[in-house]
Amino acid sequence: MRIARITTPEGPQHAILRDGSWDHIADPFARPLTYTGASTADADAVFLAPVRPAVIVGIAHNLTNNNHPLPIQAWLKSVHTLADPDAPILAARGRGTVNVEGELAVVIGKTSTALTVENALEHILGYTCVNDVTNVDQGAVDERNFQGKAGVNYTPLGPWIETDIPNPGLVGIDVIVNGEVKAKSGSFNLPSSVEECLVYVTSWLTLEPGDVVMTGAPGTAVAVEPGDRVDIDLGGIGRLSNRVA
Amino acid sequence: MRIARITTPEGPQHAILRDGSWDHIADPFARPLTYTGASTADADAVFLAPVRPAVIVGIAHNLTNNNHPLPIQAWLKSVHTLADPDAPILAARGRGTVNVEGELAVVIGKTSTALTVENALEHILGYTCVNDVTNVDQGAVDERNFQGKAGVNYTPLGPWIETDIPNPGLVGIDVIVNGEVKAKSGSFNLPSSVEECLVYVTSWLTLEPGDVVMTGAPGTAVAVEPGDRVDIDLGGIGRLSNRVA
Repeated sequence: MRIARITTPEGPQHAILRDGSWDHIADPFARPLTYTGASTADADAVFLAPVRPAVIVGIAHNLTNNNHPLPIQAWLKSVHTLADPDAPILAARGRGTVNVEGELAVVIGKTSTALTVENALEHILGYTCVNDVTNVDQGAVDERNFQGKAGVNYTPLGPWIETDIPNPGLVGIDVIVNGEVKAKSGSFNLPSSVEECLVYVTSWLTLEPGDVVMTGAPGTAVAVEPGDRVDIDLGGIGRLSNRVA
Repeated sequence: MRIARITTPEGPQHAILRDGSWDHIADPFARPLTYTGASTADADAVFLAPVRPAVIVGIAHNLTNNNHPLPIQAWLKSVHTLADPDAPILAARGRGTVNVEGELAVVIGKTSTALTVENALEHILGYTCVNDVTNVDQGAVDERNFQGKAGVNYTPLGPWIETDIPNPGLVGIDVIVNGEVKAKSGSFNLPSSVEECLVYVTSWLTLEPGDVVMTGAPGTAVAVEPGDRVDIDLGGIGRLSNRVA
């Protein structure tokens, strides 16, 4: 099932794709779903970031640059950086290289505290594409991931949430710049599974419906320049496309 | 002027203290203020965290433990940690020492991008007390300030916003545990001014009305135990009181 958040004359609206139309729903987190009766044709749909998270968590797997006793570490990205599909990424000027990072994003479906490997996936609403844009040269002075990760539209999310991913550890991730595949990898190259990421994060912080966990970039960081068109393509989910401005 | 957010039978309500009563207002960020006509007696007021920030920024002044070329660094604290005055701080168990940190909190009043030392204070709605509760022993493995700063009710805020602070660089900060003053300092002991903190943060991230910047702990970190009553007392602002559970 695909859950999107689309524009309508009455404002943003969650919707489910059925038979080529996006059928409007009242609440993407409630079950059973309640349909409003309104619908938007697929060809007319303009997609927004599919959720408005209160918290965006990034996962640092600490394989290369760090020397921690723990395999996973987390950090927080400002919700002010959230961007819709097709929104222009405003690359910071004069602050070094800007990287895009294609990642599998987990959208939390239920309040999640102290999850286990066994029950973690049950707390996920679904999966979407995220582009974790980064001022990568700031890393040297920014161990807390603030200035390296802050910028206007630095977290494009979407285009929709796919709920039916049997194994989130097997999702292919392509980063495509101006139509050319620049990185080809997948969640299978992450050192920690989606379940392990959620176990770690929720051992410290309770997550709420709509929160987003960016599971990390498995070799999917690519330097970009203003004018580039960047697509993050996740197998079985969809393609998130943004321009760098 | 003091702006609070208080409980009413109809839900949370912003209010202004006038002649011993909290007069309800429509929007604490709008000028001129619009009064609803309703009022709550000071003696009956139950205070909530005075704003619901989308982003909580912490300031790390990097004087002691780090060796950065930059004098100020920032980090983000989860909004899920926000707590009301008198809410119990749930100290993490088995995760080392829990510190409280008494700090001056800045509440942003207007959209703030690339502020200067000259115009920074104009973008502030006012000031309140914050208790930046910390799992301090996690710092060794948590350079991104995630697991050290995450916990239930780890960010008590309040009890109200004071708008009339002529010089935020001269605010005294006392940390009082079980009625005994354990730390006595003030914003004058911070290595960077409030203006400099906002210049740094907004050079990277646009802040919005209601966002909160915790300006750092000038020697105001105190270890606590379950059962302790902790008061953060800021001169000219007020006293934020919470129990450790």
